[in-house]
Amino acid sequence: MPKISISRKEYERRSEKVREALVKKKLDALYLTNEVNIFYLTGYYYIATERPAALIIPVDNEVTFMGPLLEKDHIPLRTKLIKKIQTYLDYPGEKHPIDHFVEFLKQLGLHNKTIGTDNPAGALGRWGYRGPPITEKLLKAKFVEERELIQKMRMIKSEEEIELIKESAKWANLAHSLLQDYVEPGLWDAEVSALASYDASVIMRKTLGSDYQPTKTGGFPAAAGFRGQVGSKSAIPHSVSTKNPIREGDVLITGAGADVGGYNSELERTMVVGEPTEKQKKYFKAMLEAQEAALSTFKPRAKCSGVDKAARKVLRKAGYDGLIRHHTGHGLGLEEHEPPWLDIGDDTIMKPGMVFSCEPGIYISGYAGFRHSDTVLITEDGKEVITYYPRDLDSLTIRTR
Amino acid sequence: MPKISISRKEYERRSEKVREALVKKKLDALYLTNEVNIFYLTGYYYIATERPAALIIPVDNEVTFMGPLLEKDHIPLRTKLIKKIQTYLDYPGEKHPIDHFVEFLKQLGLHNKTIGTDNPAGALGRWGYRGPPITEKLLKAKFVEERELIQKMRMIKSEEEIELIKESAKWANLAHSLLQDYVEPGLWDAEVSALASYDASVIMRKTLGSDYQPTKTGGFPAAAGFRGQVGSKSAIPHSVSTKNPIREGDVLITGAGADVGGYNSELERTMVVGEPTEKQKKYFKAMLEAQEAALSTFKPRAKCSGVDKAARKVLRKAGYDGLIRHHTGHGLGLEEHEPPWLDIGDDTIMKPGMVFSCEPGIYISGYAGFRHSDTVLITEDGKEVITYYPRDLDSLTIRTR
Repeated sequence: MPKISISRKEYERRSEKVREALVKKKLDALYLTNEVNIFYLTGYYYIATERPAALIIPVDNEVTFMGPLLEKDHIPLRTKLIKKIQTYLDYPGEKHPIDHFVEFLKQLGLHNKTIGTDNPAGALGRWGYRGPPITEKLLKAKFVEERELIQKMRMIKSEEEIELIKESAKWANLAHSLLQDYVEPGLWDAEVSALASYDASVIMRKTLGSDYQPTKTGGFPAAAGFRGQVGSKSAIPHSVSTKNPIREGDVLITGAGADVGGYNSELERTMVVGEPTEKQKKYFKAMLEAQEAALSTFKPRAKCSGVDKAARKVLRKAGYDGLIRHHTGHGLGLEEHEPPWLDIGDDTIMKPGMVFSCEPGIYISGYAGFRHSDTVLITEDGKEVITYYPRDLDSLTIRTR
Repeated sequence: MPKISISRKEYERRSEKVREALVKKKLDALYLTNEVNIFYLTGYYYIATERPAALIIPVDNEVTFMGPLLEKDHIPLRTKLIKKIQTYLDYPGEKHPIDHFVEFLKQLGLHNKTIGTDNPAGALGRWGYRGPPITEKLLKAKFVEERELIQKMRMIKSEEEIELIKESAKWANLAHSLLQDYVEPGLWDAEVSALASYDASVIMRKTLGSDYQPTKTGGFPAAAGFRGQVGSKSAIPHSVSTKNPIREGDVLITGAGADVGGYNSELERTMVVGEPTEKQKKYFKAMLEAQEAALSTFKPRAKCSGVDKAARKVLRKAGYDGLIRHHTGHGLGLEEHEPPWLDIGDDTIMKPGMVFSCEPGIYISGYAGFRHSDTVLITEDGKEVITYYPRDLDSLTIRTR
């Protein structure tokens, strides 16, 4: 059986680690509202809406989920880690959910205790939610902002997490291969993207077996696309969408990934439709050199900022300083972007188990953009580039005749 | 040309209305961080990341966007409403984005003024973002929480908005029709969903013309699916995903929508694979009666809570009180859920131009769930049900032989 999810043992280790940290920090419980942090600790993912929800990890009591009734039957199917479920019917309700939470916390004996939280409001506050902060409702409790504990745990990936990210990279590679195969002048980028993502997703599931299921809803389990970075719009890093069809001579910037047990990888490539021009070759080469310079700096004990500096140095030397639109990369794993940042302003020290995107880019306004992104793991003695799609221009040229 | 976006004139009217409200409230500017509110006022949508971004609407100065450099070339392609763009290279940067914002606000002459904001932190705070609240950095300015102004404007849809929502309902209907056509025992729900969404999206674009483009990235322009509500998992309203294939005898709960100029509609149906059993018929009938009772209460000057009460009354009478897992509906338009809420605790008075989902449901744990959702517009003299997919069981039965 291929590995497609985190083991229960690992989830238990994570909870244990949280409890140990709470004892050290003299906190009686942790109150989490971020649904990704909740997934990280339990393996249970839900659609976060306007309805308040929180996970409570008491130092010496059962892990409790407080949330809307519609999640009650969902939880036992997704996790064994949540021992107690406390619900309210809906938001706003005759009694506000935060008032229910106050009671649930009293029942847990936490009403006069010290509680760490990733969110003193006590609720995410999406989609027009309104409500009083839990801190104003539970005056005898002491709330302490504790946002770094889980974030720091998530920064260092375990062996299991790395395995899932590597599995994700395989299916990102397939989705991207199909995307490249399917590109043709005259097609709409969204169409090519949907076709490649559909085929890759179906094949991924057939390959990994019928125990596979996506963690999130909407979109594709394995996906590749362009986010609108087609032709002159490739010069806009987050172009979102385009109405122009793909044309001969276009530069395309792609993106591919796959959800394996909630974990993702990042694979992005610059492709050229038809024979590349000298101008395209020149910018492509500079981008590739910047990425190579950046890649050479990944290792334990190096600073994150150093990667950004290395990429910038190459681009500055080539005279392309003014074409930079963003830093060199970011951590990733459960979310598309995670700290630390490969940014001149982030001196975080790299450690084995950290996973980053490496994606210096240059963007020529009104003409085209050039960016690859690869997923890089810091190992005990250096680095491993997890994504393996070809990076050279010849491999990334779409032959149109 | 079909109408596929909000006119510039309407965006200008919205800005004007905001400025009038600011004058009335004695505010010198509005500081918005919610990307949907920013889209509402400008027609410009961006991928909101860890990088802080904000729209500033001064009472007597140019509308200014403050954000990451990578958005600079993007904005003029999407909107004429933003007159000034102030950027920083990236987050975290050598100088924190919030410190850049402080300077930008000084340049706008707002450093010692009264500023309304939807977010006193000054940044959305996604994906591990850390930074000081803008309120602590601009001590001479007075920040006033002002979250209701835009939210209230968004509650009442204009004629243009209603036109887009109605256009969306057509393509949701197509996506849903194809979804029903493509359902077969043995198929994976995600596969059926992707195929129907792909076909509907391509046909929608061919029909609306090549000026059509989606507002958001990821997923499909027109989409229909199940969110994992297949077989016994249909009893879980937000089931997210399932690994089980569709089987003869399954109850399926669907969902369909389409992005037209950023606006959406909501269409959900309960379907049965194969000849419905007596038990399935019984629950389906109760659900339908509850929806009909709810639908009959939509009208100007009625209370939102009244719709919820009407649906509950029918279900209570049938003895199904214990099968309710959520309230009867929510506002919608730019976001999946928007206030007001069709909830026993929301006494908001219905007004012409409000648009709601109407979706009372019943859920039998371990067996099946039953829910339709329709999009309902409040008119001057009553209501109009915008979605028009058949609601009767016979039409929603998948004939398997």
